[in-house]
Amino acid sequence: MHTNECIFCNIITGQAPARVVYRDQTVTAFWDARPIAPVHILVVPNQHIISVNQTVAAHEPMLGHLITTARQIAIEQGVDQSGYRLVINTGPDAGQSIFHLHLHIIGGRQMPFHFR
Amino acid sequence: MHTNECIFCNIITGQAPARVVYRDQTVTAFWDARPIAPVHILVVPNQHIISVNQTVAAHEPMLGHLITTARQIAIEQGVDQSGYRLVINTGPDAGQSIFHLHLHIIGGRQMPFHFR
Repeated sequence: MHTNECIFCNIITGQAPARVVYRDQTVTAFWDARPIAPVHILVVPNQHIISVNQTVAAHEPMLGHLITTARQIAIEQGVDQSGYRLVINTGPDAGQSIFHLHLHIIGGRQMPFHFR
Repeated sequence: MHTNECIFCNIITGQAPARVVYRDQTVTAFWDARPIAPVHILVVPNQHIISVNQTVAAHEPMLGHLITTARQIAIEQGVDQSGYRLVINTGPDAGQSIFHLHLHIIGGRQMPFHFR
């Protein structure tokens, strides 16, 4: 269930370039094209889901897998002990700009304690 | 599996005060004691888990339930369409200050596009 008009769907299918670090049957992980930290990797469901607003209970195992995949990537990137922030933006107030649900992994530097 | 020394465990069991907005067998949600936005609510597993670093595949349904619970709360708080940010901080670089895994729901105002 991919759409050709979605950049993340095209990355998942290999039709668009990206620095992919992990993929399995459920999720794909790749570097953000415009990283804001030394480590800035996205984990996305292979299924095209617009945002958290479109998720239902049946998605819970997949959503949890996004997080445990992020944990594994944090280890591989060497930031699991220094720390990392996981962020999912939904809608305009949060600045969601790509409408395929994605989890940001941000690490490798100190982040403001009171994140905004 | 609660510990008396954990403030979130004490909120879950009702031994410490909090503005609880939701609870079920798996998760509890309550207002952050020091909100940084008009909506700032935490969703936590009822089980004491220190951080994402301690999660394993068996936790995936619970972790996904944190997210779908956040979605439901965003609807109830009237920010599902305006937007909201979900954040999980792990370790020192991310400023994790309470060592019981928690998902922040932040909404009700515009957030910086390039979150830090």
